[in-house]
Amino acid sequence: MADSPVTEASPPGLPWYVAGSQLLGLACVVITGVWMGHYRGGYAWDGTTHEFNVHPLCMVLGLVFLYGDAIMVYRVFRNEAKRSVKVLHAALHLIALVISIVGFVAVFDFHRSAKIPSMYSLHSWCGMLTFVLFCLQWLLGLSFFLFGGVSERLRHCYLSLHVFFGLALLALAVATCLLGITEKLLFTITPTYSEFTPEGVLANTLGLLLVGFGVVVAYIVTKEDFRRPLHPEEEALSMHFKTLTEGESPNSP
Amino acid sequence: MADSPVTEASPPGLPWYVAGSQLLGLACVVITGVWMGHYRGGYAWDGTTHEFNVHPLCMVLGLVFLYGDAIMVYRVFRNEAKRSVKVLHAALHLIALVISIVGFVAVFDFHRSAKIPSMYSLHSWCGMLTFVLFCLQWLLGLSFFLFGGVSERLRHCYLSLHVFFGLALLALAVATCLLGITEKLLFTITPTYSEFTPEGVLANTLGLLLVGFGVVVAYIVTKEDFRRPLHPEEEALSMHFKTLTEGESPNSP
Repeated sequence: MADSPVTEASPPGLPWYVAGSQLLGLACVVITGVWMGHYRGGYAWDGTTHEFNVHPLCMVLGLVFLYGDAIMVYRVFRNEAKRSVKVLHAALHLIALVISIVGFVAVFDFHRSAKIPSMYSLHSWCGMLTFVLFCLQWLLGLSFFLFGGVSERLRHCYLSLHVFFGLALLALAVATCLLGITEKLLFTITPTYSEFTPEGVLANTLGLLLVGFGVVVAYIVTKEDFRRPLHPEEEALSMHFKTLTEGESPNSP
Repeated sequence: MADSPVTEASPPGLPWYVAGSQLLGLACVVITGVWMGHYRGGYAWDGTTHEFNVHPLCMVLGLVFLYGDAIMVYRVFRNEAKRSVKVLHAALHLIALVISIVGFVAVFDFHRSAKIPSMYSLHSWCGMLTFVLFCLQWLLGLSFFLFGGVSERLRHCYLSLHVFFGLALLALAVATCLLGITEKLLFTITPTYSEFTPEGVLANTLGLLLVGFGVVVAYIVTKEDFRRPLHPEEEALSMHFKTLTEGESPNSP
């Protein structure tokens, strides 16, 4: 059992769950692309609804698929150095952030051109909340875990919050997408939506697949058996921290 | 430290988080009541929109507020016997289930009277999925944890799934409510929604409060420090189980 502590094999089942998450995530991106490309007239950057169409694709690709993949890197890359995985985690989140900014610009630009008010709907409120908290979470993660200067104790305290809010934000991002799907369908196909028109069924299916992606990612990152094993150098650090906090425990709250 | 193992005090912060969750949950129920009662014409059981108005109130009260409270009982009732808390958990979920059935009947009955098709929208798909999985989860919970006949090993295996899907279903229930809010607003106040009409702002605020309730409940039930302490008789059982599983481990997957 303790023959190969550094290059430990994946726990049983994990590769299948990861593969499932990727299939669901890619299906979401492709279906959003097809919905906007085929049913809603395609993409352009011209202030029309074709510019709007960039918005859903960017949000699903950035704030759901890449965001979910960024969360899973610690489970997938189990044997690489912790620091490399941290850099990958931050980099994937940065790409997700940039793509979602493009998505935000697309919808605000379209609203300005078409003289449609912004930020009045529940979808926009949830989306803005997700985006602002995501930026904050990324900056805090960078300061606490990638740049030096923060004590091990403070890092440890923030880690559980970072993990909790990371998952909560994924859930909020998925919920915001569902709201966006509902808004778009009611704005565009209200007369035929209730007749189970293919576009409506496709968009509803996209909604369920988004929920499925979120659930599988959440399952992978919360399942105790799938946790990344501590590498020797991390184990030494963890023991050091334990000694430190146990020494402090009589004064701690 | 080990003076009072049975009547252990609540961990610091827990009562405040629980109080916060109750304030948020009650605010959601009251705002839904005011929205439907004041802005949407009140309640009746007559096949009109007044019957529909029963639906949001029942879903927020049953599938969000009571469901969330049922999840938290193990954190709140820390010193009561485990079996009593289990019975309370199942009973609260049963009340939530009955109230949500009334909510379902209200909307289907209204649709039938008003000749509006059912089950075509993403809101209805997510709602039905939540409801079916909730029933399944309740029945499985009852069979595994309240009725006898299931081995300790099987209970232990199912427990983590029960907890994970319990939280996932709360998230899905909240997301379904957000979809319902968006649908209702777009069906009824589309011309004034974008002008920040009070009804729209109230309903959007309800959406954010529902998200807040879900986040606080999820935080309370996932925070390690808030876990219910093992009581002496449970500790004995847990040791017994550990011996059993460790004895079995060479054959387990």
